[in-house]
Amino acid sequence: MNRRITVVENILSANDQLAQENRARLDAVRLLGLNIMASPGAGKTSLIEQTVRRLAGQLRIGVIEGDIATSLDAERAQAAGAASVQINTGGNCHLEAQMVRDALNQLSLDDLDLLIVENVGNLICPSGWQLGTHISVLLASVTEGDDKPYKYPTMYRGVDVLLINKVDLLPYIQFDMDYFRRGVEILNPGVTTFVLSCRTGEGLEAWLDWVLQSVQQFRQADR
Amino acid sequence: MNRRITVVENILSANDQLAQENRARLDAVRLLGLNIMASPGAGKTSLIEQTVRRLAGQLRIGVIEGDIATSLDAERAQAAGAASVQINTGGNCHLEAQMVRDALNQLSLDDLDLLIVENVGNLICPSGWQLGTHISVLLASVTEGDDKPYKYPTMYRGVDVLLINKVDLLPYIQFDMDYFRRGVEILNPGVTTFVLSCRTGEGLEAWLDWVLQSVQQFRQADR
Repeated sequence: MNRRITVVENILSANDQLAQENRARLDAVRLLGLNIMASPGAGKTSLIEQTVRRLAGQLRIGVIEGDIATSLDAERAQAAGAASVQINTGGNCHLEAQMVRDALNQLSLDDLDLLIVENVGNLICPSGWQLGTHISVLLASVTEGDDKPYKYPTMYRGVDVLLINKVDLLPYIQFDMDYFRRGVEILNPGVTTFVLSCRTGEGLEAWLDWVLQSVQQFRQADR
Repeated sequence: MNRRITVVENILSANDQLAQENRARLDAVRLLGLNIMASPGAGKTSLIEQTVRRLAGQLRIGVIEGDIATSLDAERAQAAGAASVQINTGGNCHLEAQMVRDALNQLSLDDLDLLIVENVGNLICPSGWQLGTHISVLLASVTEGDDKPYKYPTMYRGVDVLLINKVDLLPYIQFDMDYFRRGVEILNPGVTTFVLSCRTGEGLEAWLDWVLQSVQQFRQADR
């Protein structure tokens, strides 16, 4: 058993080292990086499509798409107007810093204002792997149910921003928003939260304003 | 690197060995075991609640609930009338055979007609771990989107039964059932499929009939 634990620690250290190198590359060109995490089908790609489309002309956005298979998501991001790179993990349940490093090599970082990384659809494993991005964003869908913060505490505890998506479906499902938000508040008090629907556009403006402000603040900060 | 691969292979073999032992224990008392897998919030616990409630008086059902944290699901299964055991994986993203073995020790197997294992909510990792159950069931929710078979092929390829849940929400979302089912057919031709809504009860009868028949056939089969 000791032998196994040692090996795993070495792997994690290697990942963190590469994540720091990714971070330094982004900082060098003052490029803010978001890591978007969620369950399968919570709406990550739809959020990225909407963000890229609605901020066209204001921000040049690069997208790194992580999936087990297919390039469907990178095609959608590209069609929306982003410079996009697809990572196929080949079965791996999360992105790792090395994959992001390889993807960064495919993008012209100097020509970007914002980098969005879409992690593999998984509410557990991605939370344990640093990528070098600056802000972790969790996208929750109300169709997943109001008990998810309680049942997936590691993910909910570790993120900087929470987006609650698909609120257009609230009239048709059972979802106690107060119960959901109490769970979030226990794990991650005061976390920046946006309530929205990528399908109807409801609530998207506040998220887009936050993105624009975050990019501006990041550029102006001393580092 | 070779060293790491060797260690991982040993772990997998140990799991498969324990899975075989679990299988032998279930076979000895002619107890059919289902392993239900899905994304977070696809409706696994609701399906189990409905199955236990509607088959009360016909089948005595034991439920093993796998979650990272809380005993919420086991409480729901118990309230529905099942003998239930909660496994908290403590962060682990899937159930393993040893966890199921420990849970089996908490159940009176002789007094059960059906065992349902609810795996951790994850569309990737559980597919790689045998538990000793006889039938793998994937519960897909239409709210996850119609591209999921293409993007999570390992899970869709490896299951014996597919349930398509939350079809009461189809009028309010974009979901191309033909596109979804073409993806399934490529990966898992002819897989037994049920289309249903745990919330409205639509389509549940066919699933319950299948469960009853499967238990009966399993008892009668020579092994």
